[in-house]
Amino acid sequence: MSNFYSFIGGNDGPWRVTACDAIIGDPLETVERVKVLNVPAASLTDRGVWALQGFTSNLRYAERHEIDKLRASQEGLDRPAARCAALIPIKKSPSWWALSQDERRSIFEEQSHHTEIGLAYLPEIARQLHHCRDIGEPFDFVTWFEFAPEHTDAFNKLVDQLRATREWEFVEREVDIRLFKNG
Amino acid sequence: MSNFYSFIGGNDGPWRVTACDAIIGDPLETVERVKVLNVPAASLTDRGVWALQGFTSNLRYAERHEIDKLRASQEGLDRPAARCAALIPIKKSPSWWALSQDERRSIFEEQSHHTEIGLAYLPEIARQLHHCRDIGEPFDFVTWFEFAPEHTDAFNKLVDQLRATREWEFVEREVDIRLFKNG
Repeated sequence: MSNFYSFIGGNDGPWRVTACDAIIGDPLETVERVKVLNVPAASLTDRGVWALQGFTSNLRYAERHEIDKLRASQEGLDRPAARCAALIPIKKSPSWWALSQDERRSIFEEQSHHTEIGLAYLPEIARQLHHCRDIGEPFDFVTWFEFAPEHTDAFNKLVDQLRATREWEFVEREVDIRLFKNG
Repeated sequence: MSNFYSFIGGNDGPWRVTACDAIIGDPLETVERVKVLNVPAASLTDRGVWALQGFTSNLRYAERHEIDKLRASQEGLDRPAARCAALIPIKKSPSWWALSQDERRSIFEEQSHHTEIGLAYLPEIARQLHHCRDIGEPFDFVTWFEFAPEHTDAFNKLVDQLRATREWEFVEREVDIRLFKNG
């Protein structure tokens, strides 16, 4: 099984687009539907209107005590009740990537509480991070979130909290795509 | 310019293979020559006997004081006097990748002094790390070193020191390919 995932925006797929907002920087073309395939984009014959891709990898910032808390609380994707999703591609600035590991960790967690904020919304909000900065993509990360319709307000609060952090001062492009799947 | 590099072992290229030793685990087929191209392997028409690839990326462990010391001392690749090279692909164990960032950093630097050891051999031994664990390659990293012939003993001491560290207990495959280029 590949660690690559492709997110294809176009006219088909199980996820109907309910909103597509440019939060920072350039928008993505609004599409009707999104499908997610567990393959690299290079293997696709139909790339839709746009195709984003990324790979899952080891955790880059989490410390042992944080991993243990995440594992104790988090639930996986594809829960039957989780009919809402969000696809949020993000690009950070060159100044972020020029920072050292200790500087990035300090901004990510000690100043911005990224993991701690996410933990507060477990297990309701499930997420999977995909990396794509190193493979020539327009974004650095694509995060996929899933939650039940009744947790939409909680999800909005989560992204509002993250967007108010010091870490987000390094975000130079962010698009927020909301999705709904029939049960 | 791509951040991808391909290392093609076969019958041609500027680098003549002088040794190809499996240090840990399975060997790589011995070839006569190696060439390095600044492209992804997927774009190659001639993949030689074997083709390894990896991408350059941000530093994953170095702290600010270490980056500052590296930048003050290191020299780039392609120095005319640096007619010796080493191509060292490495694969680490699943137990390494299951560690948290703080656990990996502690083993990498506080216990194994990986950056500190490398710093002691600057500027004589130039190096470039390429990542490949996330892109379906047989190795996790490919490191390329360049040095003048008179620094061969120093290079041997450098790799001996690294191989004696706690970090290397997590290495499950390592091949050491030595190369020489006519002036």
